[in-house]
Amino acid sequence: MSGRLTVVGLGPGDARWLTPEAAAALAEADALYGYAGYLDRVPPRAGQHRHPSDNREEIARARDSLAAAAAGAKVALVTAGDPGVFAMGAAVCEAIEHGPAAWRALDVAMIPGVTAMLAVAARVGAPLGHDFCALSLSDNLKPWETIERRLDAAAGAGFVLALYNPLSRARPWQLGAAFERLRRHLTESTPVVFGRAIGRADERVIVTTLAEADAANADMATLIIVGAATTRMIAREGLPPLVYTPRTGELGP
Amino acid sequence: MSGRLTVVGLGPGDARWLTPEAAAALAEADALYGYAGYLDRVPPRAGQHRHPSDNREEIARARDSLAAAAAGAKVALVTAGDPGVFAMGAAVCEAIEHGPAAWRALDVAMIPGVTAMLAVAARVGAPLGHDFCALSLSDNLKPWETIERRLDAAAGAGFVLALYNPLSRARPWQLGAAFERLRRHLTESTPVVFGRAIGRADERVIVTTLAEADAANADMATLIIVGAATTRMIAREGLPPLVYTPRTGELGP
Repeated sequence: MSGRLTVVGLGPGDARWLTPEAAAALAEADALYGYAGYLDRVPPRAGQHRHPSDNREEIARARDSLAAAAAGAKVALVTAGDPGVFAMGAAVCEAIEHGPAAWRALDVAMIPGVTAMLAVAARVGAPLGHDFCALSLSDNLKPWETIERRLDAAAGAGFVLALYNPLSRARPWQLGAAFERLRRHLTESTPVVFGRAIGRADERVIVTTLAEADAANADMATLIIVGAATTRMIAREGLPPLVYTPRTGELGP
Repeated sequence: MSGRLTVVGLGPGDARWLTPEAAAALAEADALYGYAGYLDRVPPRAGQHRHPSDNREEIARARDSLAAAAAGAKVALVTAGDPGVFAMGAAVCEAIEHGPAAWRALDVAMIPGVTAMLAVAARVGAPLGHDFCALSLSDNLKPWETIERRLDAAAGAGFVLALYNPLSRARPWQLGAAFERLRRHLTESTPVVFGRAIGRADERVIVTTLAEADAANADMATLIIVGAATTRMIAREGLPPLVYTPRTGELGP
């Protein structure tokens, strides 16, 4: 059996963030799997089979990729950002754990990439410049009470928060509820950053405060950063403000 | 004034993780600043001035880079990993906030990169596959009590932990103390990953448990990932185990 599965992080939506290692893995594959919207970012190549799938079918996509690799194909499974951060990496491991024994013998590799929170942070300064948490607001696979407990714990202990999967058509209220929850812990002037479709033509970045933060400014393609008590905003004439979290990690007032 | 400052994330120590955007920024610079150990990773180029500095001089290095940009140079300030994660991004913002007014008018850009925790995670599976925190164990700039409170909050709420700056010659006990603290919240079998010098010739990865985790296996170049109650280890015959955190985010037992 000479097949293998490589889970490739494409980075956010700009080819200038695709690492050479990821580009090489895409070039060497003879079968490409992935959500159709991400596969569209990979230029076609002669002799490569493409297997686009729907957004919600993570486990089915992981199983299909593993089955193809087990059958001898060199498979690249593409994900946006980094495969290990709210993407296909965990779904592939889960499929291996619960799948046929042969899948445990497969050559499986993960190729890291720039995850969304790093690209959003870079656009505005260094809001993740000190201790921070990455948290998914999707309650499809965990109870909302767990998310509330994590918001409380992170904000209460002075972590900056990067919020993934803030809302969707089927989950319209979660981001608004998270802002409400965070207002129990953080002052009105806490910096909040919305970063949408970073690196794409329709990129949009909003820097605001927790008092003004409006969930209506976010959609599925948005990553939100909520500062800690220490996070600062530097006004600049004629330029957007810089947002950063100092390396001194006091809990703040 | 045509100068500018670009803070460039080189990624971990392997050129295959240097993004095309970062490579372009290095090529366009006429002055390079950075810690000597990171500058050594950038191939020399005719006409470029190099300004290596010592490891601990973050603010001085940020000020020197800003002063050079303000004087008209195209400056690239290099950092390992991502500039916004425990690197030079926050130091540059801090220097701008407290520096001369002219620095606020400067063209300053951050170029994201693959940060260490993503590369370490990719080597072993997807341990950061669900909610996680990134925490620096350095108490040079924050009290140890703040670090303890953050360890308690993160582990108590079911976050996976990525520990940066675990220890150094001047701070030999912090990682051991952190493991002790985490044993109050997590079972003995909780997966722990040590990743040292990922992508370099002397790379070393250790997968163990919280019961067996020994701070003596870490140094300044090591990133440690401590699982949550939900994090799993998949044994594989003849291969290293896979470590992953399922997308279902229950708090666990």
